[in-house]
Amino acid sequence: MRRVALLGAVFLTAIVMAIVSWPKVESIKVAASDGPAFTSDDKLTLPVGYRKWVFIGAPLTPNGLNGGKAGFPEYHHVYVQEKNLEAYQHDGVFPEGTIIVKELVLLKKADYPDGSSDAASGRGFGAGVFNGMDVMVKDNRRFAKTNGWGFFNFGHHALPYEATSKEASEAECASCHRAGAAKTDMTWVDFYPVLRGKN
Amino acid sequence: MRRVALLGAVFLTAIVMAIVSWPKVESIKVAASDGPAFTSDDKLTLPVGYRKWVFIGAPLTPNGLNGGKAGFPEYHHVYVQEKNLEAYQHDGVFPEGTIIVKELVLLKKADYPDGSSDAASGRGFGAGVFNGMDVMVKDNRRFAKTNGWGFFNFGHHALPYEATSKEASEAECASCHRAGAAKTDMTWVDFYPVLRGKN
Repeated sequence: MRRVALLGAVFLTAIVMAIVSWPKVESIKVAASDGPAFTSDDKLTLPVGYRKWVFIGAPLTPNGLNGGKAGFPEYHHVYVQEKNLEAYQHDGVFPEGTIIVKELVLLKKADYPDGSSDAASGRGFGAGVFNGMDVMVKDNRRFAKTNGWGFFNFGHHALPYEATSKEASEAECASCHRAGAAKTDMTWVDFYPVLRGKN
Repeated sequence: MRRVALLGAVFLTAIVMAIVSWPKVESIKVAASDGPAFTSDDKLTLPVGYRKWVFIGAPLTPNGLNGGKAGFPEYHHVYVQEKNLEAYQHDGVFPEGTIIVKELVLLKKADYPDGSSDAASGRGFGAGVFNGMDVMVKDNRRFAKTNGWGFFNFGHHALPYEATSKEASEAECASCHRAGAAKTDMTWVDFYPVLRGKN
């Protein structure tokens, strides 16, 4: 009888320990190693969850300052996963599997030809609707010809974006990045304070 | 002897279960309940880690479009903790303890009087150096007079920002938020696509 009681107590302790120490599912981050996914014919699948990655900057090219048709219309909300950002800050190089997402967002309704509008905070610019996505993926083997990065375009239009994207031609993206940003791992760090270092 | 062996096996099982189910410390998010901290004389202490919170928008009021002196110079990088963002998206109200951080960032060197500059991506705007921080904190009891929100200014200047901030007067912040954003929990949701709902 004592043996049964003792065993019961030990099992109860084990169960309580397991319950107490079990990680709460909702409190666990999606692993930053949750990297790029490709289809069997080498298309990149649309990244998910990127709006909760680390934001690094919002360059803005208003249509109103670019002949009505900016190449990237108009806000560029740029995100990277925390682990990869920290690696760049430490080493000056993004790790294999890094994804950089640039989500495009149109401006709010304009009051002026340059696209700006008046608000309580002053004359300026604010985000309207989401309008497209471009993505860079670091993979030195797969994208050896373009300095280790592949470039993808999931559409420059309202949601929903394309589900997959084939690699953009070198002329579409990589050639410009190579010409202007080869020394900083093909990324335009001058637009992103947290990539530039001292601030 | 058999009883000792059995007990040993049970203890071992308990230990293994505890180890296996123990959450990995580095994979656990800082709790979003990591809320505002006040000094004994009711000053808010400078939020930390906010650049890894969820980015919701980057309104921009260039000095060049505001007589050389925008009220909020110039990019406003706005962040909120994930749990609080999700609560707002669900309920239309921010939970007690919500912190909204607005970090200000000057523009890069301008090529035009409006503050814009030419880049490979077109004519537009990009972030220069960090230049200040304003913060809103939701606490219905503490800030009952200003619709449940306290407003704080940690300086409009280069880093480092002030370590603490006393509550801003109603005229400095709350009155304008009340006039323009009382129906949307004192936040200017029109500037933030993820707070506006459908996109």
